[in-house]
Amino acid sequence: MTGNVTGTLAEFAAGDIVPSSEARLVTVLSALDWLAVGLAGRSEPVSAILRQLAADEGGAAQATLFGGGQVPVRMAALANGTISHALDYDDTHFAHIGHPSVAVFPAALAMAERRRTSVADMLEAALTGMEVSIRVGLWLGRGHYQVGFHQTATAGAFGAAVAAGRLLQLDATQMRHVIGLTATRASGLKAQFGTMGKPYNAGLAASCGVEVADLVARGFIANPDALDGPFGFGATHHGAAAPEALHDLGRSWTFETVSHKFHACCHGLHAALEAARELDLAAPEISELTARTHPRWMSVCNQSTPDTGLGAKFSYRTVLAMHAVGYDTARLDSFDDAVCADPRVIDLRDHIRVEADDSLSETEAVLTLLRRDGARREVKHDLMTVMALPEREARVREKAENLIGRDIAQAAWSMLRGGGQVTDFAALLDG
Amino acid sequence: MTGNVTGTLAEFAAGDIVPSSEARLVTVLSALDWLAVGLAGRSEPVSAILRQLAADEGGAAQATLFGGGQVPVRMAALANGTISHALDYDDTHFAHIGHPSVAVFPAALAMAERRRTSVADMLEAALTGMEVSIRVGLWLGRGHYQVGFHQTATAGAFGAAVAAGRLLQLDATQMRHVIGLTATRASGLKAQFGTMGKPYNAGLAASCGVEVADLVARGFIANPDALDGPFGFGATHHGAAAPEALHDLGRSWTFETVSHKFHACCHGLHAALEAARELDLAAPEISELTARTHPRWMSVCNQSTPDTGLGAKFSYRTVLAMHAVGYDTARLDSFDDAVCADPRVIDLRDHIRVEADDSLSETEAVLTLLRRDGARREVKHDLMTVMALPEREARVREKAENLIGRDIAQAAWSMLRGGGQVTDFAALLDG
Repeated sequence: MTGNVTGTLAEFAAGDIVPSSEARLVTVLSALDWLAVGLAGRSEPVSAILRQLAADEGGAAQATLFGGGQVPVRMAALANGTISHALDYDDTHFAHIGHPSVAVFPAALAMAERRRTSVADMLEAALTGMEVSIRVGLWLGRGHYQVGFHQTATAGAFGAAVAAGRLLQLDATQMRHVIGLTATRASGLKAQFGTMGKPYNAGLAASCGVEVADLVARGFIANPDALDGPFGFGATHHGAAAPEALHDLGRSWTFETVSHKFHACCHGLHAALEAARELDLAAPEISELTARTHPRWMSVCNQSTPDTGLGAKFSYRTVLAMHAVGYDTARLDSFDDAVCADPRVIDLRDHIRVEADDSLSETEAVLTLLRRDGARREVKHDLMTVMALPEREARVREKAENLIGRDIAQAAWSMLRGGGQVTDFAALLDG
Repeated sequence: MTGNVTGTLAEFAAGDIVPSSEARLVTVLSALDWLAVGLAGRSEPVSAILRQLAADEGGAAQATLFGGGQVPVRMAALANGTISHALDYDDTHFAHIGHPSVAVFPAALAMAERRRTSVADMLEAALTGMEVSIRVGLWLGRGHYQVGFHQTATAGAFGAAVAAGRLLQLDATQMRHVIGLTATRASGLKAQFGTMGKPYNAGLAASCGVEVADLVARGFIANPDALDGPFGFGATHHGAAAPEALHDLGRSWTFETVSHKFHACCHGLHAALEAARELDLAAPEISELTARTHPRWMSVCNQSTPDTGLGAKFSYRTVLAMHAVGYDTARLDSFDDAVCADPRVIDLRDHIRVEADDSLSETEAVLTLLRRDGARREVKHDLMTVMALPEREARVREKAENLIGRDIAQAAWSMLRGGGQVTDFAALLDG
């Protein structure tokens, strides 16, 4: 029905919300994770370009950039969205088919900083926005992604807009205009994968959200049916209009099942690495190790004998050997060229085979280990299996400490758990 | 072929161009027209919102806003694109299915002002950009528009980007990246028609162009095949990939056939008003006047007895009566509420009938006049008929003088014809 989806989303976005304790904790974990990958990515080439543009533009000191400096919220959202996705090490929601945090947190944090809200208000707005972006992603469906749209950017823009709008205290009618106006501004193609355009897509979503919400707060009138009405975003952008997408909105929280990345390499390798953790691999015991994976990954991340750190990020044999000899694959600095010249890695690689197995899904991998003592073990891992919260908390915090150091990670954790003012949290982006 | 369209456009956009004298003159006319409608629209509600946002952001004084103030180029392009389309009184290119000037001039002028180029360089870049936006519009085709995309915004973004890139002196390889990056940023839906979202779409195109060109100039790497390659903008956005779209690019200039609006009312009324000019209507002579028009317009602009100036803009009977009694329908201030209460207009309206005629195209209208002396005349006008240049020049200049006063219009005309520095021309935007 025309406007029904928008109306439901707008009521949710502007109303009181009662998140589950799991959703609240996962939001805190994602905020810490987002801060960590953003700070770690602040010197990437694409980050430098965005920071330079921001510096040349200048303007009101409304919100902090990763790497320091304060600029207007629209620019902060554009730059921080791009910077935090530069390493492609941020969280993923498989049903959304996208990365919720890098679209929504840059918008929420920038607007919260300008509005000088509490950390709690920022987190609540971000959770609301991420829930909306996942629901819009579900509503658009897999076909939207398959045809070429980057859900992180397209569905993400709606989440970013709603988060920013909530911090501007917009009512449900204004939220309808926010959603309608986002429909004409949201964009982003998968064709940019492998280029600086991919992280930029996240920045576009964040910046769109801030701009659109700010315009509506100033009285801008859009077509409130431009998401799900005739000739709306769903119709023009190959959306499935999946009716179940909004099921139980406000009572169940799809964001709870967001997945964090714990390895600084291609996502296609993560299931095998998680299986390796469960196997408790140690190099001296390995006689033969076989990794089975979905056929799709064979052309993506199955480099046989890479000789650069970048190549290693796309090589089953290399990352499994690295893990077995004791490299921490969560650390960015594990992936340097030297690792490919490490004789322990090179020796072990020859004992590892990779096989395509079309009975597996894209998120599954099976490792079969033949030990020197003749024992045989097999472990299967599916990234879709949601990690128990205590383990998730421990690993996200460990990852953050690896990326940005113990002091900043712990300071961020206390602020996110303990409350306080968002300006103090934003100051951590200075690095 | 993959990349072929982009390659051809990029070579054209970065290379030497030799415009026809007609294309050069029409560019000057469109620049004057754009300045006039932008200045005339600077106090519209949507303009006030964008100007307020720009004032709150502040930043480097790079480019002048309609209504005064200098801001960074991205913001100037966003605001000036929106402001210049606020009245919907700017030029139209029927084959492009869009409004080339409001997407491209804001980008070209802002970047030219920041770069302190000559007026001639700004005009050359704008013409190059508008030619590209029309060619991309042709390449995307009518289906792209029919499904719901607003070509002014989508195809327009490519033109704006190329114009800005030319002023940054990008080479053909960089232009490929400009086009590829635009593919992930360009957006705009027809669903916004009738709201502030429509003029905003023009601002989005202009702002996208400036941002993308600036990023590429700073070293940004995108997918250069993201317009016409696999999963590119054409494939995702229902493009026809019409092969003839680039025919004779650089030798023939599609921009020559851009059409200017000479009546400050709904476009559906223009063919009838042009026919009325040819009939030389005078109220005392009219016994009965019949207007025949494409059936589509009957639900758009056939209000029978409006009582507001806004209503008059959507009423065949009212505008034809206004013309016959001597109102100048080119003037904005002709369309006030008083005109609907003018007894001469009310009396004459009763002698005017409007009929749908499905043998006519959307750009055609036929007037049949029965005079009091019994004489009968019939005139048909088609807006697709390109007006002879001397008449076009006279009418554009007259329209500009009506909108912004003789002094500013003449100053603008001299600068556009005579050359000089773009900073002087930009100063006219102060109003």
